[in-house]
Amino acid sequence: MTDDRSPTGLGSTTIATIAQEVGVSSATVSKVLNGRSDVAAGTRARVEASLERHRYRRRARRTTGEGQIDLVFHEFGSDWALEIIRGVEAVTSATQLNVVLSQLGGAHRPPQSWVDALIARRPLGVLLVMCNLTDQQRQQLQRQAIPVVVVDTDSASSASVPTVGSNNWNGGLLATRHLLELGHRRVAIISGPPDVLCARARTAGFRCAHEELGVPVDPALVRAGNFHLDAGYTHGIELLSRPDRPTAIFAGSDLQAMGVLRAARQLGLDVPGDLSVVGYDNLPVAAWIGPALTTVNQPLRDMAGTATRMLLDLARGVALPPSRIDLVAELVVRESTAPPPPT
Amino acid sequence: MTDDRSPTGLGSTTIATIAQEVGVSSATVSKVLNGRSDVAAGTRARVEASLERHRYRRRARRTTGEGQIDLVFHEFGSDWALEIIRGVEAVTSATQLNVVLSQLGGAHRPPQSWVDALIARRPLGVLLVMCNLTDQQRQQLQRQAIPVVVVDTDSASSASVPTVGSNNWNGGLLATRHLLELGHRRVAIISGPPDVLCARARTAGFRCAHEELGVPVDPALVRAGNFHLDAGYTHGIELLSRPDRPTAIFAGSDLQAMGVLRAARQLGLDVPGDLSVVGYDNLPVAAWIGPALTTVNQPLRDMAGTATRMLLDLARGVALPPSRIDLVAELVVRESTAPPPPT
Repeated sequence: MTDDRSPTGLGSTTIATIAQEVGVSSATVSKVLNGRSDVAAGTRARVEASLERHRYRRRARRTTGEGQIDLVFHEFGSDWALEIIRGVEAVTSATQLNVVLSQLGGAHRPPQSWVDALIARRPLGVLLVMCNLTDQQRQQLQRQAIPVVVVDTDSASSASVPTVGSNNWNGGLLATRHLLELGHRRVAIISGPPDVLCARARTAGFRCAHEELGVPVDPALVRAGNFHLDAGYTHGIELLSRPDRPTAIFAGSDLQAMGVLRAARQLGLDVPGDLSVVGYDNLPVAAWIGPALTTVNQPLRDMAGTATRMLLDLARGVALPPSRIDLVAELVVRESTAPPPPT
Repeated sequence: MTDDRSPTGLGSTTIATIAQEVGVSSATVSKVLNGRSDVAAGTRARVEASLERHRYRRRARRTTGEGQIDLVFHEFGSDWALEIIRGVEAVTSATQLNVVLSQLGGAHRPPQSWVDALIARRPLGVLLVMCNLTDQQRQQLQRQAIPVVVVDTDSASSASVPTVGSNNWNGGLLATRHLLELGHRRVAIISGPPDVLCARARTAGFRCAHEELGVPVDPALVRAGNFHLDAGYTHGIELLSRPDRPTAIFAGSDLQAMGVLRAARQLGLDVPGDLSVVGYDNLPVAAWIGPALTTVNQPLRDMAGTATRMLLDLARGVALPPSRIDLVAELVVRESTAPPPPT
């Protein structure tokens, strides 16, 4: 052990300690810490392993008031992205903070180049929407004292990252229970992609409601798609063209539900006379379309606002327990649901 | 004249020249240039007047590849904001640039504090959406070699700022001509707020189409509102409750048109049987609602992409002539328009 304590080291581990252990110069360790790209991959990996072994942490920086937070979407594919942006803005607009916007083009993990550039910029914190970091990326940011908060995602594997979501299971339960209580016995679900945990949670709620009332689930009526209009339309046409078509469809998003409504119109089916439809999200538009959509209110703005406040707390050095906060999802009954047609 | 040339001065004017003329220290001039707040307002004004008189310009900075551009909305009030963001992202995602997002809470001019903070950050450039700078703010950014491009706004007074819009007058003409050619003789327009120039341009196109075909415009059918759903609904209810109600309504946005559709449903009017409706924007949702909306395609993504490329050119030092580029607006005919009902 040398006594050459770096001012940026926390506790007893210094850059020199790491350099000595790995057999490189202190400058090389600094380069790895600063996300510079001019370090050989093998060397970088050995330095990072040593940093992690020693639990090396940068000292938290002071808040300059000119800081930035990064808001990262897996994609802007759905209009609810704007609701998230509004929720973040509502919190940051009262501060001197700027919001830096990125999207990952549909990927659920950012590429390493993005993480390296992020570290070079050193934002106050990072808000990830429907995407997450690898364990190694998370450790890299942790070493730089750049906090991370995740908004609603398939975060089963990362209990160590604070997450804000909504209770998707309960949302699925409430929507399905509403349809079964109206008397529907053939209820279809079009959910999100199967690799997205929130979609699986809603499907689980759908199944649970059926079990509660002793109604069997027909596997042919359980569909997975993306959250967009076209998935609702395509599955809607398929489901509603069956001789044993469902009398109700629970869609994975309001946009998907609008795709179902279009499929119903095309096939000459009246909503809610021949078919009941339930959406998910409660986007502003859901109240305005005809028929106005019964949907599950996912409090996207509140979720984003809560996540932003958590991020600012973490950046100020407030210790938050690793946690997942689920805001309550509630059913909003409008015009698109009714009892099934008489058989 | 002193020979003490500052390395940041362009041409013969130096910080020392300005300081001598105003009778302050060079440090004070630097503070004003850097947007620091610790300069008395009177002193700041005298320094800025002198800087402008000498047409003082900072030397353009090198592009570091880690730059940021600022994207500023007057508000996120409408879903087309997301289309703009997508258009910007499509260009920046191929670069190392980050997008910093702001909104002005409905104001059409940013506050001076925002401009000061911007200058302290020195982004590569600024993209303003539906908002603009005062002449003084524009000069401040020009001195810092921070280029500005405006997307579609009431920019009549600022020919000196490159602007990308779409031909609103032509959009209004095409939509109204379509309705008149279908045989409608009582056509209403619900436009945007009267202080927004694009709204006035569309109304002028509406009037021009009437003149072309020799159809008089009833002033009672010319309405101004915001671009949101509620304005379409409120004006829709009013217009359609009149004994001499219009047989067609041209709305200022697709969202406004959805408000009109809701008003029609509530009053038991069939679209397009009893009432034709034309929207504006051609948001993705317009194709999916029932009836699918006839609307004017405002190429929002292309407009944002064009503006972003112009901004990057300016930041690289490419000299662009002061210009307004108007992309073409085209009519998209769908299901919401038809000949008027027989009288």
